[in-house]
Amino acid sequence: MPELRKDPIIDRWVIISTERGKRPVFFIEETPPSKSTVCPLCPGNEGMTPPEVYAVRPPPGPNSTTSDWTLRVVPNKFPALRIEGDLDKEGRGLYDKMNGIGAHEVIVETPHHGETLWDLPVERIQDVFIAYRERTLDLSRDRRFKYIMVFKNHGSVAGASLDHSHSQLIALPIVPRRVVEEMNGGLTYYKFKDRCIFCDIITQEKEDSVRVVFENEQFIALSPYAARFPFETWILPKKHEAVFADHDRRDNYHSLAETASTILKKYFKVLNAPPYNYVIHTAPSGSGEIPHYHWHIELIPRLTKMAGFEWGTGFYINPTPPEEATVYLKETQL
Amino acid sequence: MPELRKDPIIDRWVIISTERGKRPVFFIEETPPSKSTVCPLCPGNEGMTPPEVYAVRPPPGPNSTTSDWTLRVVPNKFPALRIEGDLDKEGRGLYDKMNGIGAHEVIVETPHHGETLWDLPVERIQDVFIAYRERTLDLSRDRRFKYIMVFKNHGSVAGASLDHSHSQLIALPIVPRRVVEEMNGGLTYYKFKDRCIFCDIITQEKEDSVRVVFENEQFIALSPYAARFPFETWILPKKHEAVFADHDRRDNYHSLAETASTILKKYFKVLNAPPYNYVIHTAPSGSGEIPHYHWHIELIPRLTKMAGFEWGTGFYINPTPPEEATVYLKETQL
Repeated sequence: MPELRKDPIIDRWVIISTERGKRPVFFIEETPPSKSTVCPLCPGNEGMTPPEVYAVRPPPGPNSTTSDWTLRVVPNKFPALRIEGDLDKEGRGLYDKMNGIGAHEVIVETPHHGETLWDLPVERIQDVFIAYRERTLDLSRDRRFKYIMVFKNHGSVAGASLDHSHSQLIALPIVPRRVVEEMNGGLTYYKFKDRCIFCDIITQEKEDSVRVVFENEQFIALSPYAARFPFETWILPKKHEAVFADHDRRDNYHSLAETASTILKKYFKVLNAPPYNYVIHTAPSGSGEIPHYHWHIELIPRLTKMAGFEWGTGFYINPTPPEEATVYLKETQL
Repeated sequence: MPELRKDPIIDRWVIISTERGKRPVFFIEETPPSKSTVCPLCPGNEGMTPPEVYAVRPPPGPNSTTSDWTLRVVPNKFPALRIEGDLDKEGRGLYDKMNGIGAHEVIVETPHHGETLWDLPVERIQDVFIAYRERTLDLSRDRRFKYIMVFKNHGSVAGASLDHSHSQLIALPIVPRRVVEEMNGGLTYYKFKDRCIFCDIITQEKEDSVRVVFENEQFIALSPYAARFPFETWILPKKHEAVFADHDRRDNYHSLAETASTILKKYFKVLNAPPYNYVIHTAPSGSGEIPHYHWHIELIPRLTKMAGFEWGTGFYINPTPPEEATVYLKETQL
């Protein structure tokens, strides 16, 4: 059973996945994902993954025995957390831990091995976001889970261990530190101004007009003012919404998919198909429509190596001003 | 002039180094440090760096025109921050910034191009720590600087842009976020218990005896309970000390150098000469001997790729339990 351990000095939880325990030799011999072995995410190999929990298939609809899916969600075969068991908490002296209870799922975004999000039509990306929502809503019913984290690693540099295009979802018994910090920051501002800080940022960005990369009716994509990484981009709903999964009208997901597709296609063109990550930041699913938090997606192409002081201090050096990144991304024609 | 910009949601400052502004093409063509070009840190090429600010030379002592040094500190030729100017602060709507005032220095640890810390005798590593201290004390006199950050990137994966073994020092007009968090965490604990949490951790670790990698008279090296990364190691003085640069008896630096040398040699052997980083965490130089903070060095071999949700959420998955890492490191004979 993996463990969740809490750093006694700062409130940071870490998953220690005891069962995956890698011996030193594994790190040394680590190689990029091999292309020659059979891909467990390709059609025809459905038996290599645990049984699917969600899928998109053409009419007449779901039938988990066929290979005619265009999207599929399966439990991770090597989960960082385990779904069975109680949430036992335990202390020993200064140290606190709890059972590594959670869920870890893989969203297979396309049946085609060589294809990835920037190749897909907007409707298929919309399917991906709807899958995130459906799985989030389903897992939120489990009272042991406090937060559903959706993220994507594209490319081995960005941490992907399989070539086949996929994103991941981890249901956690705690709310991640960064989200708590953002919620606290948002609350402090709200107490002071009675407004959502993210809404105010959107207003100022539209006025300043130097960091807005793209917008459509419902979404805005911008290079954040204090971007940590070159070409970092945030996508936010223009209307105040705290919880990603409450964003429930299908046409809204289309608008989101159009925005994400545009940014990814621009990354592809300007940065030459870079490895990248994105993470959805949302208020915990149970929090309802709180006025001080605003869900968003943070996208980061992995262009620079994270140096020592950055993980060590939480302090970043960004060699590309966000205004300059905006010009490159904005001016590129798709 | 680079800028320090503050994230308006959470209190995180970022250096935006406007002048280094990298165009997309630079990221695409980025290659590992070349071995064929002339090394600016090698003896004989002293003219390729700005004039030295500190050096270790055999008797009769300092003479900055010769190449007989064993250690040298020079300003960074491409500094992330600029030393000249006033610390102007400015706000625009939601956004705060200040001039990128600071210092950025390079500690050249050895004249031999192929040699690095795990090859050096303990006395030479002691010289490196003494150089950190001397430069820290000197820069602390400048009232514009609130924090002196010392770190090392070894290997291109760990962010080193030069092959020749070196560490870096950045003087900042702000205290990095992680250090503030640790100080706050330490203060909360101190108010509650009237004891330093780091001192209590050392006590408990000595009792538990499953995460102590090495100790000598004055220092202890341990795998932290909630380690974020495989084989992460912290080195702490056993006696309570808040500020690294106040650690002023030369024999203490010998004891520290012996500890650091032992851990690095063990990394070399167990993990096959891995890329690694370390960062010194200290109370800001002006804070005096505060009872709730305890300086330490955090070392991390770069074995796993940081995946998307880790930078995005501050939440880590560590595949190697620290107790297991301890066994490997402890049992390896040097």
